[in-house]
Amino acid sequence: MDTLECLFCRTRAPLDVFSPFCPDCREPMFFARESGKRRLHADRALPLERWLDFLPLDHVAPELGLGEGDTPLVRLNKLAPEVGLPRLYAKFEAQNPTMSFKDRGTAAAVQKAVALGFGRIGTVSTGNMAASTAAYGARAGLETTVLLKEETSPQSLLAAGIFGPRLIRVRGDYGGLFFKSLEIGRKLGIYFMNSVDPVRIEGYKVTAFEIFLQCGEKAPGSIFVPVSSGGHFIGLMRGFEDLLAEGLIERYPTFVGVQAEGCAPLARAFAAGRVKYERLAAAHTIAHAISNPAPPAGNAVLRMVREHGGMVVSVSDAQILEAQRALAEREGLFCQPESAVTWAALLKLSGQAKPGPDPSAVLVLTGSGLKAPKALESQPIKAEDASLEELERTLAGPVRP
Amino acid sequence: MDTLECLFCRTRAPLDVFSPFCPDCREPMFFARESGKRRLHADRALPLERWLDFLPLDHVAPELGLGEGDTPLVRLNKLAPEVGLPRLYAKFEAQNPTMSFKDRGTAAAVQKAVALGFGRIGTVSTGNMAASTAAYGARAGLETTVLLKEETSPQSLLAAGIFGPRLIRVRGDYGGLFFKSLEIGRKLGIYFMNSVDPVRIEGYKVTAFEIFLQCGEKAPGSIFVPVSSGGHFIGLMRGFEDLLAEGLIERYPTFVGVQAEGCAPLARAFAAGRVKYERLAAAHTIAHAISNPAPPAGNAVLRMVREHGGMVVSVSDAQILEAQRALAEREGLFCQPESAVTWAALLKLSGQAKPGPDPSAVLVLTGSGLKAPKALESQPIKAEDASLEELERTLAGPVRP
Repeated sequence: MDTLECLFCRTRAPLDVFSPFCPDCREPMFFARESGKRRLHADRALPLERWLDFLPLDHVAPELGLGEGDTPLVRLNKLAPEVGLPRLYAKFEAQNPTMSFKDRGTAAAVQKAVALGFGRIGTVSTGNMAASTAAYGARAGLETTVLLKEETSPQSLLAAGIFGPRLIRVRGDYGGLFFKSLEIGRKLGIYFMNSVDPVRIEGYKVTAFEIFLQCGEKAPGSIFVPVSSGGHFIGLMRGFEDLLAEGLIERYPTFVGVQAEGCAPLARAFAAGRVKYERLAAAHTIAHAISNPAPPAGNAVLRMVREHGGMVVSVSDAQILEAQRALAEREGLFCQPESAVTWAALLKLSGQAKPGPDPSAVLVLTGSGLKAPKALESQPIKAEDASLEELERTLAGPVRP
Repeated sequence: MDTLECLFCRTRAPLDVFSPFCPDCREPMFFARESGKRRLHADRALPLERWLDFLPLDHVAPELGLGEGDTPLVRLNKLAPEVGLPRLYAKFEAQNPTMSFKDRGTAAAVQKAVALGFGRIGTVSTGNMAASTAAYGARAGLETTVLLKEETSPQSLLAAGIFGPRLIRVRGDYGGLFFKSLEIGRKLGIYFMNSVDPVRIEGYKVTAFEIFLQCGEKAPGSIFVPVSSGGHFIGLMRGFEDLLAEGLIERYPTFVGVQAEGCAPLARAFAAGRVKYERLAAAHTIAHAISNPAPPAGNAVLRMVREHGGMVVSVSDAQILEAQRALAEREGLFCQPESAVTWAALLKLSGQAKPGPDPSAVLVLTGSGLKAPKALESQPIKAEDASLEELERTLAGPVRP
């Protein structure tokens, strides 16, 4: 029963992949929750199959998958004491087929595209989602179109282009492109699975379910997630809503959405107690992948955070770079700056927030540091030089700056 | 019983991490096989724990791990018919913590380093191994030294440097540096876990064990693996030797080692029927990570391949780039050129080789394509341009070159 529902006015409508927005209030719509009897099928091979009861799919075609999900939950024993937590973990989403969380959503959306008989898919992206959609489109043998912002880096372009999609750089307003793509998609029969596509968002729920299992079939005390368009954050929140609805958890975790100060429309609205955000004119941050000045699901994020006692905060570029380094140097995890915002936020909040009944936290590290090579150039990394003959003396001595 | 054995003269000696070479013939030594009663412990959480009976470790300290292993075996339904195989798979080692197979070996070697009481570790590398060793060293809180070839790319330097190791660029012969590092290591108490470190090689066996399980507790017909220093290839071969020794498989798979034509000392020796290879003066290939002109375990590779009816072949840079594109465009897997050699070799051999009793093959894709951004610039990837207004017309029309 592919029925969508509006969070705001509770309007219901059948799934329309070309316009998953409320006909009344224009907010993005999500799948209406189906009632009860949903459960984990732990004996099945693939994450999507195991959690099929919770997904808007009738079955999973394994040949469309690339081995997404089942990412590790890595315990952070060195960073935990810095924020006074007995248990701190990172959910390392870099260990997905295209090295970011996007694969979770793309995997679900491509299953749906094939089930619905689409031969063409597409996306609007500047980076992770472009590579992910191009990879799964190639895998499924679908004609795939990737629409890129004009100033997309050559590296991002190539990393999506290797999968052989049609790549088009589009001049003009990027926010406008998001909606325009859906309009054109309807005319040409292209399913644009963009950032807040409702099937994509359901795919992200699986990450929440894995965190639940990996925490010993419990919700952690809090979960820190980078927020850009809002799709991933909402998917994770919806996952824990499902677990609560099925009686699998007793207490909903505290969700903390994190933005970069240079582009924090939702953190600003949250701090001001507003229910709707104001779109920004521009973004200035090294965390490009989360610098959406007009996040399509932004108001939905604010509403869900209010409902569940969560929050949205922001951190500075300097804090982000320091957090990226700390995660790598202290714990061995190299994530993109956009993921490091989570540790920066926990550190920033640690003075203020009182540990709740369950003083454990999970940082969702959304993508590999290799995705953002440019950011590394801002890190204070130095190498020494030595000849083969000098090497022993050099190594016996202290590090020379 | 940490006893090493020489493949060539069967000399045995206790493990000496500073000189894991035969005192008699100077070839690298590997762990002597322990007798019987080794089995999988499927109920344990971590890959290293599950296969502990087969590893030179007494126990596994989970806090030293980063979630290595358990990588997917992806079925390649589109490429399989091109080589007339009913079943073809890719073992996608990019889904490891630092995005390459090296993590398997580093994880084992760091467990050993901590068990032996080392406070300092190091490695000699130009890329994947540098990042991997730096990551696990950081994780374990060990003082970590990475020795780099003088001309290491800034990107590789930064991708290892983010973990905070001591980075030293060394002028002089790179092959000489390999042995020099071990000498210095003994004097200064630094465990240099280089490419043919025997514990590292045992760690690679776990990949073989996973392939065995993922193929339905059987060996595939053939296994294609890139060969550089020889450590990874030998680890995989040793894994299947163990499975055979324990009676878990009946038939040993055909191993095909693959080199790049521009640096193929082992493929040359194999083709000429020689038991020892001749070191090359230089390497000329885009597959930098497998361009070792004097592979330390090269003779051991030749010997094991002869013993088990395998082979070593080479492929050209043009074939490598085409294979990289085919894996991405047809199957959705973006690997580094060094990994794509496997598909190039299978394609090259497909006319010649007769399918054996089990006509299935596994390609071991050793690392993510994001590891080698430079190689992408040699791929024919093109983007179109359009304004927001032109977009619909552009999309309705054919791709414009």
